[in-house]
Amino acid sequence: MEGLKGALLFGQSGGPTAVINASALGVFEEALKNGAVTKVFGACHGIKGVLDDKLVDIGTEDASELRLLIQTPSSALGSVRYKLANLNDDDRDYKRIHEIFAKYDIRFFLYNGGNDSMDTCNKISKYLSSVNYACNVVGVPKTIDNDLYGTDHCPGYGSAAKYIATTCMEIALDSKVYDKGSIAVIEIMGRHAGWLTAASAVASYRGLGPDLIYLPETPFDVESFLDEVYDTYRQKGNCIAAVSEGICDESGKYIAEYAFENAERDSFNHIQLGGVGNYLGGRIKSKTGVKVRPIEFSLMQRCAAHIASKTDVEEAYEAGAQAVRSAVVGSTDVMIGFRRAEGENYVCECVELPLSIVANTEKKVPLGYITEGKPFITPAFLDYVTPLIQGEVNMKFEDGLPRFAKLNKKL
Amino acid sequence: MEGLKGALLFGQSGGPTAVINASALGVFEEALKNGAVTKVFGACHGIKGVLDDKLVDIGTEDASELRLLIQTPSSALGSVRYKLANLNDDDRDYKRIHEIFAKYDIRFFLYNGGNDSMDTCNKISKYLSSVNYACNVVGVPKTIDNDLYGTDHCPGYGSAAKYIATTCMEIALDSKVYDKGSIAVIEIMGRHAGWLTAASAVASYRGLGPDLIYLPETPFDVESFLDEVYDTYRQKGNCIAAVSEGICDESGKYIAEYAFENAERDSFNHIQLGGVGNYLGGRIKSKTGVKVRPIEFSLMQRCAAHIASKTDVEEAYEAGAQAVRSAVVGSTDVMIGFRRAEGENYVCECVELPLSIVANTEKKVPLGYITEGKPFITPAFLDYVTPLIQGEVNMKFEDGLPRFAKLNKKL
Repeated sequence: MEGLKGALLFGQSGGPTAVINASALGVFEEALKNGAVTKVFGACHGIKGVLDDKLVDIGTEDASELRLLIQTPSSALGSVRYKLANLNDDDRDYKRIHEIFAKYDIRFFLYNGGNDSMDTCNKISKYLSSVNYACNVVGVPKTIDNDLYGTDHCPGYGSAAKYIATTCMEIALDSKVYDKGSIAVIEIMGRHAGWLTAASAVASYRGLGPDLIYLPETPFDVESFLDEVYDTYRQKGNCIAAVSEGICDESGKYIAEYAFENAERDSFNHIQLGGVGNYLGGRIKSKTGVKVRPIEFSLMQRCAAHIASKTDVEEAYEAGAQAVRSAVVGSTDVMIGFRRAEGENYVCECVELPLSIVANTEKKVPLGYITEGKPFITPAFLDYVTPLIQGEVNMKFEDGLPRFAKLNKKL
Repeated sequence: MEGLKGALLFGQSGGPTAVINASALGVFEEALKNGAVTKVFGACHGIKGVLDDKLVDIGTEDASELRLLIQTPSSALGSVRYKLANLNDDDRDYKRIHEIFAKYDIRFFLYNGGNDSMDTCNKISKYLSSVNYACNVVGVPKTIDNDLYGTDHCPGYGSAAKYIATTCMEIALDSKVYDKGSIAVIEIMGRHAGWLTAASAVASYRGLGPDLIYLPETPFDVESFLDEVYDTYRQKGNCIAAVSEGICDESGKYIAEYAFENAERDSFNHIQLGGVGNYLGGRIKSKTGVKVRPIEFSLMQRCAAHIASKTDVEEAYEAGAQAVRSAVVGSTDVMIGFRRAEGENYVCECVELPLSIVANTEKKVPLGYITEGKPFITPAFLDYVTPLIQGEVNMKFEDGLPRFAKLNKKL
């Protein structure tokens, strides 16, 4: 496929992060200066924008406004959760995508997202290849969940981890302030993988974090949890427990489901979670009578660009830029990933991973990062995560508040 | 009382803020260099530390570690919610305070807190005066609620307002990202006064904030709320509503009470609130079937030092330093407040306000700041609040996370 020339299309998919737009900027700036790229398009609301023929011409955007994407959280082009049908069942979406790509002469398709988005990339790539439409498809990783297979970590995770650790420290200072003790239950995102919840341990190792940390990787027993929380409270006069939204009991049932009898499911058949912290807080309160405060980090943990990790922002940008370079030199059906060099100093380089091995495989927290016999995180995890939260962004403020990018495009 | 010389005692009380320790630093640095002050003490857990004879000698702390208080949220000395009895009913606490003050030759007593703390100051000042114990008592204002009477605003409010407006902007970017609409209900602190919730409007006026804002100053009707949210959703495809935790219906009953049948009360006879956002979110969901996300800013809004307002930090420091100067030159039974100069440019100076007029009076959001006929905030409020959120602190980080002060004292 080397020597391909034509338009480049970029889309954003899945849940937003603090740095997804930094990847977009990497794509746009690299593509706009690349000779093989005749035009740079953004798809409104990801693959939905392709199906609806809603593409925006990034070349018409003001360059300095575009630059502000580096510090603007969420997905500037709009995101989507749309699952392509299996080709054998229904080929209408695929034909439509082919039609739109041909209309705009799209020869480079870059898609930014997590597991489901890489699956979408993979399906499109295979279809276009089957109909002999020349187009290089490259995935750009993104997920605060850090659960993409094959890459050392994912853009978005470092900033979320930095938010979580920082906020845990601030909450530890706050919630331990009274002479009368209290118990805090912090609920952190992570459906199947506990990477985000584990990040709270960085605060603990600095002396200001959760006493107990529960990941979805190990079965959760409510009665043991209540005992552990109350024991800690009696010993220390206070207790902070961090729990992943996705904790399950031995049978695999979400603890959150006990709170919400009629759990809903989204189009990917995920259960809509939330409220496990409130549920457990109520259980503690009933059992112990102690003052309990459930705290949910909610959307803040994925959109708090003002406390983003500089390392994460720079890597997110680089992943976008590298995706353009890879597509232009002929790579296709791959996702850009990170490979960490061995040794003391943190060095990470971009690599290409086959989409087929990335899509639909979740990378969980290895058991070596989980303390044996008690709900906590090992120092080995600190070695892994600490480089990812390094550095602070020098955010531009305007009249006291962050100045976010304002693009011309209408979604 | 001029010419008084002796030890100075400082205590922190009530709910923490991002800048209460900046006031402490102002007190400590000013007192340590002031010739009239023989020794500088901190009371562990406020007035409780006095009653328990738990004072710490601030002069033994490392000066550079003390300096880090400028960026350390919460109350470094520990806080307390303890209500002194009325003197006529029970004078034991007062006699004990007198005893401890005499033991350490405390001649300057500075107390940092909100309404209830100023009441404590006032009672102690009156008692000491009645027993002819010479001691100048000066209050240092502190409350994210901004409801202290007589002062233009309170230290702690500007930083909480900056956190709220910034986070609303980030959430607006995040929650409006999908092609399918959703409704977010943001619950913001404020028991009786809506200053914090009103701060979300700064984000709205920048194009990224709540569509609807409900303060406790006006009666809240659940049915009207549901209609307003759904109407906005149908018009715009999305809706963000900000509600104060303290919203009440026409009869004065907290909306949160409908969620929690058995509301608890703390020692000041305040109802323990929480959950109104979840309650209203559930009501919206039931009525409309739309995807709803309740978001509670919880402790983060009062402890997020990493996004503190520089103006607020500087003013908090200055209020502490001024309290020392006032006490030393003979002022007593006063609280330091801020007076804003008239005119285009923001200039604020410290003034002394009699404790008797400050204590137990709550300053609510004036009706001129609340839009008539709809749940929103007027531009006049923006003129008031915008100067208070100006500037960012240049926070010191260590290995990726904020470096907070570590004092020697054991609480």
